[in-house]
Amino acid sequence: MAERGYTATKDQLQTRLARIEGQVRGVSRMVEEDRYCIDVLTQISAIRVALDKVALGLLDDHARHCLIGGEGGPTDPDNQVQELMGAVGRMIGR
Amino acid sequence: MAERGYTATKDQLQTRLARIEGQVRGVSRMVEEDRYCIDVLTQISAIRVALDKVALGLLDDHARHCLIGGEGGPTDPDNQVQELMGAVGRMIGR
Amino acid sequence: MAERGYTATKDQLQTRLARIEGQVRGVSRMVEEDRYCIDVLTQISAIRVALDKVALGLLDDHARHCLIGGEGGPTDPDNQVQELMGAVGRMIGR
Amino acid sequence: MAERGYTATKDQLQTRLARIEGQVRGVSRMVEEDRYCIDVLTQISAIRVALDKVALGLLDDHARHCLIGGEGGPTDPDNQVQELMGAVGRMIGR
Repeated sequence: MAERGYTATKDQLQTRLARIEGQVRGVSRMVEEDRYCIDVLTQISAIRVALDKVALGLLDDHARHCLIGGEGGPTDPDNQVQELMGAVGRMIGR
Repeated sequence: MAERGYTATKDQLQTRLARIEGQVRGVSRMVEEDRYCIDVLTQISAIRVALDKVALGLLDDHARHCLIGGEGGPTDPDNQVQELMGAVGRMIGR
Repeated sequence: MAERGYTATKDQLQTRLARIEGQVRGVSRMVEEDRYCIDVLTQISAIRVALDKVALGLLDDHARHCLIGGEGGPTDPDNQVQELMGAVGRMIGR
Repeated sequence: MAERGYTATKDQLQTRLARIEGQVRGVSRMVEEDRYCIDVLTQISAIRVALDKVALGLLDDHARHCLIGGEGGPTDPDNQVQELMGAVGRMIGR
Protein backbone atom coordinates (compact mmCIF):
# COMPACT_ATOMS: atom_id res chain seq x y z
CA MET A 1 0.00 0.00 0.00
CA ALA A 2 2.89 2.31 0.79
CA GLU A 3 3.73 3.05 -2.82
CA ARG A 4 0.14 4.30 -3.31
CA GLY A 5 -0.03 5.87 0.23
CA TYR A 6 -2.92 5.27 2.61
CA THR A 7 -2.63 6.76 6.08
CA ALA A 8 -4.44 3.93 7.66
CA THR A 9 -2.99 0.57 6.94
CA LYS A 10 -4.71 -1.36 4.21
CA ASP A 11 -6.17 -3.62 6.89
CA GLN A 12 -7.60 -0.69 8.86
CA LEU A 13 -9.18 0.78 5.72
CA GLN A 14 -10.55 -2.60 4.72
CA THR A 15 -11.99 -3.08 8.21
CA ARG A 16 -13.72 0.31 8.06
CA LEU A 17 -15.05 -0.35 4.57
CA ALA A 18 -16.30 -3.81 5.57
CA ARG A 19 -18.10 -2.22 8.52
CA ILE A 20 -19.64 0.41 6.22
CA GLU A 21 -20.77 -2.35 3.87
CA GLY A 22 -22.45 -4.07 6.82
CA GLN A 23 -24.10 -0.81 7.86
CA VAL A 24 -25.52 -0.33 4.35
CA ARG A 25 -26.92 -3.88 4.48
CA GLY A 26 -28.37 -3.00 7.87
CA VAL A 27 -30.18 0.00 6.37
CA SER A 28 -31.57 -2.26 3.65
CA ARG A 29 -32.97 -4.58 6.33
CA MET A 30 -34.52 -1.59 8.15
CA VAL A 31 -36.21 -0.53 4.93
CA GLU A 32 -37.38 -4.10 4.35
CA GLU A 33 -38.88 -4.16 7.86
CA ASP A 34 -40.57 -0.75 7.37
CA ARG A 35 -38.64 0.69 10.24
CA TYR A 36 -39.38 4.32 11.30
CA CYS A 37 -37.77 6.75 8.83
CA ILE A 38 -35.94 8.80 11.48
CA ASP A 39 -34.18 5.67 12.77
CA VAL A 40 -33.11 4.76 9.24
CA LEU A 41 -31.86 8.31 8.69
CA THR A 42 -29.80 8.08 11.87
CA GLN A 43 -28.05 5.01 10.47
CA ILE A 44 -27.40 6.73 7.14
CA SER A 45 -25.82 9.69 8.93
CA ALA A 46 -23.55 7.25 10.80
CA ILE A 47 -22.49 5.71 7.47
CA ARG A 48 -21.73 9.19 6.13
CA VAL A 49 -19.48 9.95 9.12
CA ALA A 50 -17.65 6.64 8.61
CA LEU A 51 -17.24 7.32 4.89
CA ASP A 52 -15.87 10.81 5.55
CA LYS A 53 -13.35 9.28 7.92
CA VAL A 54 -12.15 6.89 5.22
CA ALA A 55 -11.98 9.77 2.74
CA LEU A 56 -9.99 11.99 5.12
CA GLY A 57 -7.60 9.12 5.77
CA LEU A 58 -7.09 8.60 2.06
CA LEU A 59 -6.59 12.32 1.43
CA ASP A 60 -4.13 12.52 4.32
CA ASP A 61 -2.13 9.69 2.82
CA HIS A 62 -2.29 11.20 -0.62
CA ALA A 63 -0.95 14.52 0.67
CA ARG A 64 1.77 12.76 2.63
CA HIS A 65 3.00 10.30 0.02
CA CYS A 66 2.07 11.74 -3.36
CA LEU A 67 1.82 15.51 -2.90
CA ILE A 68 4.78 15.95 -0.57
CA GLY A 69 6.48 12.57 -0.81
CA GLY A 70 6.38 12.46 -4.60
CA GLU A 71 5.62 8.71 -4.54
CA GLY A 72 2.83 8.83 -7.08
CA GLY A 73 0.59 10.93 -9.23
CA PRO A 74 1.54 13.90 -11.39
CA THR A 75 4.88 15.58 -10.88
CA ASP A 76 3.80 18.95 -12.20
CA PRO A 77 2.72 21.11 -9.21
CA ASP A 78 -0.22 22.59 -11.06
CA ASN A 79 -1.69 19.16 -11.78
CA GLN A 80 -0.95 18.02 -8.24
CA VAL A 81 -2.90 20.93 -6.79
CA GLN A 82 -5.78 20.54 -9.25
CA GLU A 83 -6.10 16.87 -8.36
CA LEU A 84 -6.06 17.65 -4.64
CA MET A 85 -8.58 20.46 -4.98
CA GLY A 86 -10.85 18.38 -7.21
CA ALA A 87 -11.00 15.74 -4.49
CA VAL A 88 -11.66 18.32 -1.75
CA GLY A 89 -14.32 20.06 -3.88
CA ARG A 90 -16.15 16.75 -4.34
CA MET A 91 -15.83 16.04 -0.61
CA ILE A 92 -17.70 19.26 0.24
CA GLY A 93 -20.18 18.78 -2.57
CA ARG A 94 -19.07 21.82 -4.58
CA MET B 1 -44.09 0.73 3.05
CA ALA B 2 -46.90 3.24 3.09
CA GLU B 3 -47.66 2.93 6.78
CA ARG B 4 -44.02 3.87 7.46
CA GLY B 5 -43.69 6.33 4.47
CA TYR B 6 -40.81 6.21 2.00
CA THR B 7 -41.02 8.52 -1.00
CA ALA B 8 -39.36 6.03 -3.24
CA THR B 9 -40.95 2.64 -3.33
CA LYS B 10 -39.34 0.02 -1.14
CA ASP B 11 -37.95 -1.60 -4.32
CA GLN B 12 -36.40 1.67 -5.52
CA LEU B 13 -34.78 2.26 -2.13
CA GLN B 14 -33.55 -1.32 -1.97
CA THR B 15 -32.10 -1.00 -5.49
CA ARG B 16 -30.26 2.20 -4.53
CA LEU B 17 -28.96 0.66 -1.33
CA ALA B 18 -27.84 -2.51 -3.13
CA ARG B 19 -25.97 -0.34 -5.63
CA ILE B 20 -24.33 1.61 -2.76
CA GLU B 21 -23.32 -1.68 -1.15
CA GLY B 22 -21.69 -2.71 -4.44
CA GLN B 23 -19.91 0.64 -4.67
CA VAL B 24 -18.50 0.19 -1.17
CA ARG B 25 -17.23 -3.27 -2.14
CA GLY B 26 -15.73 -1.67 -5.24
CA VAL B 27 -13.82 0.81 -3.07
CA SER B 28 -12.51 -2.10 -0.99
CA ARG B 29 -11.20 -3.74 -4.14
CA MET B 30 -9.53 -0.49 -5.21
CA VAL B 31 -7.81 -0.29 -1.83
CA GLU B 32 -6.78 -3.95 -2.15
CA GLU B 33 -5.29 -3.23 -5.59
CA ASP B 34 -3.45 -0.10 -4.29
CA ARG B 35 -5.31 2.05 -6.71
CA TYR B 36 -4.42 5.80 -6.85
CA CYS B 37 -5.97 7.64 -3.86
CA ILE B 38 -7.66 10.33 -5.93
CA ASP B 39 -9.55 7.68 -7.92
CA VAL B 40 -10.67 5.98 -4.71
CA LEU B 41 -11.78 9.36 -3.31
CA THR B 42 -13.84 9.98 -6.45
CA GLN B 43 -15.71 6.73 -5.82
CA ILE B 44 -16.30 7.63 -2.18
CA SER B 45 -17.77 11.00 -3.19
CA ALA B 46 -20.11 9.18 -5.58
CA ILE B 47 -21.25 6.93 -2.71
CA ARG B 48 -21.88 10.02 -0.58
CA VAL B 49 -24.08 11.57 -3.28
CA ALA B 50 -26.04 8.31 -3.57
CA LEU B 51 -26.45 8.08 0.22
CA ASP B 52 -27.67 11.68 0.41
CA LYS B 53 -30.24 10.87 -2.24
CA VAL B 54 -31.56 7.95 -0.20
CA ALA B 55 -31.61 10.16 2.91
CA LEU B 56 -33.51 12.95 1.15
CA GLY B 57 -36.01 10.41 -0.16
CA LEU B 58 -36.56 9.05 3.33
CA LEU B 59 -36.90 12.54 4.82
CA ASP B 60 -39.34 13.52 2.09
CA ASP B 61 -41.46 10.50 2.87
CA HIS B 62 -41.24 11.14 6.59
CA ALA B 63 -42.44 14.72 6.13
CA ARG B 64 -45.22 13.60 3.82
CA HIS B 65 -46.54 10.64 5.78
CA CYS B 66 -45.59 11.20 9.39
CA LEU B 67 -45.18 14.94 9.86
CA ILE B 68 -48.10 16.03 7.72
CA GLY B 69 -49.96 12.78 7.13
CA GLY B 70 -49.87 11.76 10.80
CA GLU B 71 -49.26 8.11 9.84
CA GLY B 72 -46.48 7.49 12.29
CA GLY B 73 -44.15 8.93 14.88
CA PRO B 74 -45.00 11.35 17.70
CA THR B 75 -48.28 13.22 17.61
CA ASP B 76 -47.06 16.12 19.73
CA PRO B 77 -45.89 18.88 17.31
CA ASP B 78 -42.89 19.76 19.47
CA ASN B 79 -41.57 16.20 19.32
CA GLN B 80 -42.34 15.97 15.62
CA VAL B 81 -40.26 19.07 14.89
CA GLN B 82 -37.44 17.98 17.17
CA GLU B 83 -37.24 14.62 15.41
CA LEU B 84 -37.24 16.27 12.00
CA MET B 85 -34.60 18.81 12.99
CA GLY B 86 -32.44 16.15 14.64
CA ALA B 87 -32.38 14.26 11.36
CA VAL B 88 -31.60 17.39 9.31
CA GLY B 89 -28.90 18.45 11.78
CA ARG B 90 -27.19 15.07 11.43
CA MET B 91 -27.52 15.27 7.64
CA ILE B 92 -25.53 18.51 7.56
CA GLY B 93 -23.06 17.29 10.15
CA ARG B 94 -24.09 19.76 12.88
CA MET C 1 -41.94 37.47 13.65
CA ALA C 2 -44.30 34.82 15.02
CA GLU C 3 -46.60 34.86 12.04
CA ARG C 4 -43.56 34.04 9.89
CA GLY C 5 -42.06 31.65 12.53
CA TYR C 6 -38.44 31.84 13.60
CA THR C 7 -37.39 29.56 16.41
CA ALA C 8 -34.99 32.08 17.74
CA THR C 9 -36.48 35.43 18.47
CA LYS C 10 -35.92 38.06 15.82
CA ASP C 11 -33.39 39.70 18.15
CA GLN C 12 -31.45 36.45 18.61
CA LEU C 13 -31.34 35.86 14.86
CA GLN C 14 -30.31 39.46 14.21
CA THR C 15 -27.56 39.16 16.84
CA ARG C 16 -26.22 35.99 15.22
CA LEU C 17 -26.37 37.52 11.76
CA ALA C 18 -24.64 40.70 12.95
CA ARG C 19 -21.90 38.55 14.48
CA ILE C 20 -21.55 36.62 11.19
CA GLU C 21 -21.30 39.91 9.31
CA GLY C 22 -18.50 40.97 11.66
CA GLN C 23 -16.74 37.64 11.14
CA VAL C 24 -16.88 38.09 7.36
CA ARG C 25 -15.36 41.56 7.74
CA GLY C 26 -12.71 39.99 9.95
CA VAL C 27 -11.83 37.52 7.20
CA SER C 28 -11.51 40.42 4.76
CA ARG C 29 -9.04 42.10 7.12
CA MET C 30 -7.04 38.86 7.41
CA VAL C 31 -6.85 38.67 3.62
CA GLU C 32 -5.82 42.33 3.48
CA GLU C 33 -3.04 41.64 6.01
CA ASP C 34 -1.84 38.54 4.09
CA ARG C 35 -2.55 36.34 7.06
CA TYR C 36 -1.65 32.62 6.85
CA CYS C 37 -4.24 30.75 4.74
CA ILE C 38 -4.94 28.06 7.32
CA ASP C 39 -5.87 30.70 9.90
CA VAL C 40 -8.22 32.37 7.43
CA LEU C 41 -9.78 28.99 6.60
CA THR C 42 -10.37 28.35 10.29
CA GLN C 43 -12.38 31.57 10.48
CA ILE C 44 -14.39 30.66 7.40
CA SER C 45 -15.28 27.29 8.91
CA ALA C 46 -16.49 29.10 12.05
CA ILE C 47 -18.70 31.32 9.89
CA ARG C 48 -20.11 28.22 8.20
CA VAL C 49 -21.02 26.66 11.55
CA ALA C 50 -22.72 29.90 12.61
CA LEU C 51 -24.63 30.11 9.32
CA ASP C 52 -25.79 26.51 9.63
CA LYS C 53 -27.07 27.31 13.12
CA VAL C 54 -29.12 30.19 11.77
CA ALA C 55 -30.43 27.98 8.95
CA LEU C 56 -31.41 25.17 11.34
CA GLY C 57 -33.18 27.69 13.56
CA LEU C 58 -35.12 29.04 10.60
CA LEU C 59 -36.01 25.54 9.36
CA ASP C 60 -37.12 24.55 12.86
CA ASP C 61 -39.40 27.56 13.01
CA HIS C 62 -40.71 26.91 9.53
CA ALA C 63 -41.58 23.31 10.42
CA ARG C 64 -43.19 24.42 13.67
CA HIS C 65 -45.23 27.35 12.43
CA CYS C 66 -45.81 26.81 8.74
CA LEU C 67 -45.59 23.06 8.13
CA ILE C 68 -47.38 21.93 11.27
CA GLY C 69 -48.88 25.17 12.56
CA GLY C 70 -50.30 26.17 9.19
CA GLU C 71 -49.40 29.83 9.84
CA GLY C 72 -47.86 30.47 6.45
CA GLY C 73 -46.77 29.06 3.15
CA PRO C 74 -48.66 26.64 0.90
CA THR C 75 -51.58 24.73 2.31
CA ASP C 76 -51.30 21.83 -0.12
CA PRO C 77 -49.22 19.07 1.58
CA ASP C 78 -47.35 18.23 -1.59
CA ASN C 79 -46.12 21.81 -1.99
CA GLN C 80 -45.32 22.04 1.70
CA VAL C 81 -43.10 18.96 1.52
CA GLN C 82 -41.46 20.08 -1.72
CA GLU C 83 -40.60 23.44 -0.19
CA LEU C 84 -39.19 21.79 2.93
CA MET C 85 -37.15 19.30 0.95
CA GLY C 86 -35.89 21.96 -1.43
CA ALA C 87 -34.52 23.87 1.54
CA VAL C 88 -32.94 20.74 3.09
CA GLY C 89 -31.47 19.70 -0.27
CA ARG C 90 -29.80 23.10 -0.63
CA MET C 91 -28.55 22.90 2.96
CA ILE C 92 -26.68 19.67 2.21
CA GLY C 93 -25.48 20.93 -1.16
CA ARG C 94 -27.51 18.42 -3.22
CA MET D 1 -0.38 38.22 -1.45
CA ALA D 2 2.05 35.85 -3.13
CA GLU D 3 4.18 35.29 -0.07
CA ARG D 4 1.05 34.11 1.77
CA GLY D 5 -0.52 32.55 -1.38
CA TYR D 6 -4.16 33.11 -2.41
CA THR D 7 -5.29 31.60 -5.71
CA ALA D 8 -7.59 34.43 -6.44
CA THR D 9 -5.98 37.80 -6.34
CA LYS D 10 -6.45 39.73 -3.15
CA ASP D 11 -8.89 41.98 -5.01
CA GLN D 12 -10.97 39.02 -6.23
CA LEU D 13 -11.14 37.55 -2.72
CA GLN D 14 -12.01 40.93 -1.23
CA THR D 15 -14.76 41.39 -3.84
CA ARG D 16 -16.24 37.97 -3.01
CA LEU D 17 -16.05 38.63 0.72
CA ALA D 18 -17.64 42.09 0.32
CA ARG D 19 -20.46 40.46 -1.66
CA ILE D 20 -20.92 37.84 1.06
CA GLU D 21 -21.01 40.59 3.68
CA GLY D 22 -23.78 42.29 1.67
CA GLN D 23 -25.67 39.00 1.38
CA VAL D 24 -25.54 38.52 5.16
CA ARG D 25 -26.91 42.05 5.63
CA GLY D 26 -29.61 41.15 3.10
CA VAL D 27 -30.61 38.15 5.22
CA SER D 28 -30.81 40.41 8.27
CA ARG D 29 -33.19 42.69 6.39
CA MET D 30 -35.32 39.70 5.35
CA VAL D 31 -35.55 38.63 8.99
CA GLU D 32 -36.42 42.20 9.98
CA GLU D 33 -39.20 42.24 7.37
CA ASP D 34 -40.54 38.82 8.51
CA ARG D 35 -39.92 37.38 5.12
CA TYR D 36 -40.98 33.74 4.45
CA CYS D 37 -38.48 31.31 6.05
CA ILE D 38 -37.87 29.28 2.89
CA ASP D 39 -36.82 32.43 1.00
CA VAL D 40 -34.41 33.37 3.79
CA LEU D 41 -33.01 29.82 3.78
CA THR D 42 -32.43 30.06 0.03
CA GLN D 43 -30.29 33.14 0.62
CA ILE D 44 -28.33 31.44 3.38
CA SER D 45 -27.57 28.50 1.09
CA ALA D 46 -26.29 30.96 -1.53
CA ILE D 47 -23.99 32.51 1.08
CA ARG D 48 -22.71 29.04 1.98
CA VAL D 49 -21.86 28.30 -1.65
CA ALA D 50 -20.01 31.61 -1.93
CA LEU D 51 -18.11 30.96 1.32
CA ASP D 52 -17.10 27.48 0.15
CA LYS D 53 -15.78 29.02 -3.05
CA VAL D 54 -13.60 31.44 -1.06
CA ALA D 55 -12.41 28.56 1.14
CA LEU D 56 -11.53 26.36 -1.84
CA GLY D 57 -9.63 29.26 -3.40
CA LEU D 58 -7.66 29.78 -0.20
CA LEU D 59 -6.93 26.05 0.16
CA ASP D 60 -5.84 25.88 -3.49
CA ASP D 61 -3.43 28.73 -2.92
CA HIS D 62 -2.17 27.22 0.30
CA ALA D 63 -1.44 23.92 -1.42
CA ARG D 64 0.23 25.68 -4.32
CA HIS D 65 2.38 28.16 -2.42
CA CYS D 66 2.93 26.73 1.04
CA LEU D 67 2.55 22.95 0.71
CA ILE D 68 4.32 22.54 -2.62
CA GLY D 69 5.93 25.94 -3.10
CA GLY D 70 7.39 26.06 0.41
CA GLU D 71 6.63 29.79 0.67
CA GLY D 72 5.09 29.67 4.10
CA GLY D 73 3.94 27.53 6.99
CA PRO D 74 5.71 24.57 8.57
CA THR D 75 8.58 22.93 6.74
CA ASP D 76 8.16 19.55 8.39
CA PRO D 77 5.99 17.37 6.09
CA ASP D 78 4.05 15.87 8.98
CA ASN D 79 2.97 19.29 10.22
CA GLN D 80 2.21 20.44 6.71
CA VAL D 81 -0.15 17.49 6.16
CA GLN D 82 -1.77 17.87 9.56
CA GLU D 83 -2.48 21.54 8.90
CA LEU D 84 -3.93 20.76 5.48
CA MET D 85 -6.09 17.92 6.80
CA GLY D 86 -7.26 20.01 9.76
CA ALA D 87 -8.53 22.61 7.34
CA VAL D 88 -10.22 20.01 5.09
CA GLY D 89 -11.76 18.26 8.12
CA ARG D 90 -13.29 21.55 9.28
CA MET D 91 -14.52 22.26 5.76
CA ILE D 92 -16.54 19.03 5.71
CA GLY D 93 -17.69 19.48 9.28
CA ARG D 94 -15.80 16.49 10.71
